[in-house]
Amino acid sequence: MAARRPRPRTPPIGPARAAYQELEVRFRRLGMLSGVQAMLDWDSATLMPPGGAAVRTDQLALLAAQTHRELTDPAIAALAKRAARGRLTPAQSANLSGMGYYLRHARAVPDALVEALGRASARCEVAWRAAKPANDFKGLRPHLTQVLALVREKAAAKAAAFGCSPYDALLDQFNHGITVAHIDPVLDRLARDLPPLVREAMEAQARRPRPRKPAGAVPAPLQQSLGREVATRMGFDFTGGRLDESAHPFTGGVPGDVRITSRPLPNDFLSGLMAVIHETGHALYEQGLPARWRWQPSGEAAGSAMHEAQALLWEMQVGRGRAFLGALVPGIRRAFRRSGPAFTAANIVGLAQRVRPGFIRVDADEVTYPLHVVLRYRLEKALVSGDLVMADLPGAWADGMKSLLGVVPRTDTEGCLQDIHWTFGNYGYFPSYALGAAAAAQLFRAAARADRSIRPRLRQGDGGPLLAWLRNNIHAHGSRYAAPELLRRATGRGFDAEALLQHLRTRYVTGGD
Amino acid sequence: MAARRPRPRTPPIGPARAAYQELEVRFRRLGMLSGVQAMLDWDSATLMPPGGAAVRTDQLALLAAQTHRELTDPAIAALAKRAARGRLTPAQSANLSGMGYYLRHARAVPDALVEALGRASARCEVAWRAAKPANDFKGLRPHLTQVLALVREKAAAKAAAFGCSPYDALLDQFNHGITVAHIDPVLDRLARDLPPLVREAMEAQARRPRPRKPAGAVPAPLQQSLGREVATRMGFDFTGGRLDESAHPFTGGVPGDVRITSRPLPNDFLSGLMAVIHETGHALYEQGLPARWRWQPSGEAAGSAMHEAQALLWEMQVGRGRAFLGALVPGIRRAFRRSGPAFTAANIVGLAQRVRPGFIRVDADEVTYPLHVVLRYRLEKALVSGDLVMADLPGAWADGMKSLLGVVPRTDTEGCLQDIHWTFGNYGYFPSYALGAAAAAQLFRAAARADRSIRPRLRQGDGGPLLAWLRNNIHAHGSRYAAPELLRRATGRGFDAEALLQHLRTRYVTGGD
Repeated sequence: MAARRPRPRTPPIGPARAAYQELEVRFRRLGMLSGVQAMLDWDSATLMPPGGAAVRTDQLALLAAQTHRELTDPAIAALAKRAARGRLTPAQSANLSGMGYYLRHARAVPDALVEALGRASARCEVAWRAAKPANDFKGLRPHLTQVLALVREKAAAKAAAFGCSPYDALLDQFNHGITVAHIDPVLDRLARDLPPLVREAMEAQARRPRPRKPAGAVPAPLQQSLGREVATRMGFDFTGGRLDESAHPFTGGVPGDVRITSRPLPNDFLSGLMAVIHETGHALYEQGLPARWRWQPSGEAAGSAMHEAQALLWEMQVGRGRAFLGALVPGIRRAFRRSGPAFTAANIVGLAQRVRPGFIRVDADEVTYPLHVVLRYRLEKALVSGDLVMADLPGAWADGMKSLLGVVPRTDTEGCLQDIHWTFGNYGYFPSYALGAAAAAQLFRAAARADRSIRPRLRQGDGGPLLAWLRNNIHAHGSRYAAPELLRRATGRGFDAEALLQHLRTRYVTGGD
Repeated sequence: MAARRPRPRTPPIGPARAAYQELEVRFRRLGMLSGVQAMLDWDSATLMPPGGAAVRTDQLALLAAQTHRELTDPAIAALAKRAARGRLTPAQSANLSGMGYYLRHARAVPDALVEALGRASARCEVAWRAAKPANDFKGLRPHLTQVLALVREKAAAKAAAFGCSPYDALLDQFNHGITVAHIDPVLDRLARDLPPLVREAMEAQARRPRPRKPAGAVPAPLQQSLGREVATRMGFDFTGGRLDESAHPFTGGVPGDVRITSRPLPNDFLSGLMAVIHETGHALYEQGLPARWRWQPSGEAAGSAMHEAQALLWEMQVGRGRAFLGALVPGIRRAFRRSGPAFTAANIVGLAQRVRPGFIRVDADEVTYPLHVVLRYRLEKALVSGDLVMADLPGAWADGMKSLLGVVPRTDTEGCLQDIHWTFGNYGYFPSYALGAAAAAQLFRAAARADRSIRPRLRQGDGGPLLAWLRNNIHAHGSRYAAPELLRRATGRGFDAEALLQHLRTRYVTGGD
């Protein structure tokens, strides 16, 4: 076979290369603007006094409009076209493709629809905050219906532009490269195999002694100080981040300044601790993204399913496991200045692994959680396709809960009003949670097989080797590969429910872990 | 005399009016962008971890560049020209004139000079943070010299564009409508009359018993909780603002969300308390600006001298006075859970009114403080004119301290390296402090004469009536009038040292107050 001339690593500068460079400059500016929005969002959720809300809303709308304007500028489309004709490095081509993703999504929807959806979602969210505690689905329905109508319009516009189904177009917003074809096999398998597994887990649990609830409140500052210790053990860099409090835990901030929040409940410290571990999982992903591609599409995380996978890997696979959680117990006793039978390793692990079908997704245990997601996935697909109308949502919700979890909520507050996603127009996000749970199990299994020091070091409360594996196999790639491909490179398979089901069976039925 | 037809309050819409409306839209966007910068600045000073600095600097530079670009856009100049030809309401005309002020300043300086000065100041500030503690004037000199050279270039460009002296052009950046002709009479009078007054105050003080320093530390959270109580008594609205901690106290935020910071020192609670009162004075001004003109030039404060006047009125006239500070003492004892001879009203007022010439401006007492400002004003005028070169600054500093305050610093750390202003290129700001002190005395005298309930209510720890007078006479006018005119409308005179000198003589020499 004749020797081929090696391809030059840096192609010569031509008009196409210049166009690409100009695109990098523009996306850098857009990235920084989105970072500004992220800081304002963080502030809104943590510190802002009520009087700041009106101005903050205006500021965020201004920045969003500016971003949309710049992404739909005909000049940027022309640059992308020109850049695509040139010889780029493979990494640049991947980045250009990521740029194309943003341009496509921005361009597919008319400005008027973007604005109408923004206004309708903002109104619907305000109405939801009142309707949820009041159990007033009927009052919220017109708002939900209006948001859904606009979402369907958006989905149709994107579907026409991309040549895919409307629901796939919505999915693509949160997970580029993931379609119902990836999701259905995973979620159908979970829908089939989890309900019997839940029953077996409950039976196994009934044979063990019931763990004790710790008596008395743990002050929030002590919980946050424990949270800082645990985040540090996981590898979170506090010179480039913070831990604060907010009503709903989340991860925000910008590269170099990644901010996690928790909500310490005085009488349920495990809830706050698991939130810290979950959010630290998100934050470690952000801290591990490739600095070379900062502010570029390639430098971002590979979609929300992969992001949830990081969070759920640390929270579920690691944080609720006997090895790591057991190792944290001496630190918990020290931080809270507490001891006694409620603060033994066995008891705390027992509390973290309680299984019980309930109504509320965010309070669900590891085994039942994916079933809550299956329900939402099926309902939102039907809402988007038109097979389900908003008026029938409460009934469909009750039916789904009955068949998947065996329980039916007494109110819409505990039913279809519990989540913010649909009020906000975020149809297509929910499956990320279940795919993330599946991928978390896949990744943890692959990591523990590849590096035999991971499990022993977790038993010492040290997340270092696990983080190193994730850095190399997931974080460092940014969004160069779409999530299914990235997962395949790291574990040998795309999204798959097998590892999760096996993990749940091991932990909750056959042996404990 | 023939009746004149009343002038219509709202002129008919024509091209000039449309141009004016478009300008309001553009300035609203610029105002919101500056509000975004204000929030990021606040965050940098209070919460940001070190790893966030690089991204934050990039973000702020991006927003500053965008503002400069929009202000120098030829289209905005054309709109202003067109709007000026139309019939506007008097309030709109005032706002248009405020717009012209921003456009003029932005246009007068070439982009390259703006960028060069931005870079040089940023480098100089970094160098200053190392040079100040190391007493290394020589090491900092090249940086200071470079910044000064660029400032002189900027001043010359603005002077040529505005038809004024270079130093007046710099002054105009911080105080539109104030020139050396306003400043010289006030500061010359202070330079002449304060040194003998300082000696008399020291003699009077020597005849009184020396106040006791409270023993033991006061934890920061207790001090901040007192600070919140005092700010509330002054009228600060915590539903539209916050009080936090930072290395240097400042007031930031946006309309509806005004944020003050303090730096509670464990062994000197009065320092932190006076900082809270000072910053609350700034914040009340911001909270009282006219909502109708939010984000427009007319809706802003009337320059930095008037802003300092608000802060110094509350800190010096009110906060260090027997009436208000005495009324706070029971709350201080309660908040700190302390009592004894160091916590009597007489002792705490005595501590707040100690006079002693020192080296450091920000630690100076009320009587010597303006002399520190006189020194800086004279030196910066000479530096800008070229009469003084940077190499001779330490010598000139020592001479000035000797003649104005009778003390000479042993090091440059305690001398010409103490302030950040010149490292940052902020020549022309210093006189605001002395004008502000003079105006504070003028305003307090006028207020107390106009509303006889002000003093008795302050003796009850209630700032309400004083705030109401300030709201009506200063805050509500925004920057519709330049500071000298605004002061004249409120007090009958422009900036004048007489009221300050009389106040200081009363409090520190003849009687106490």
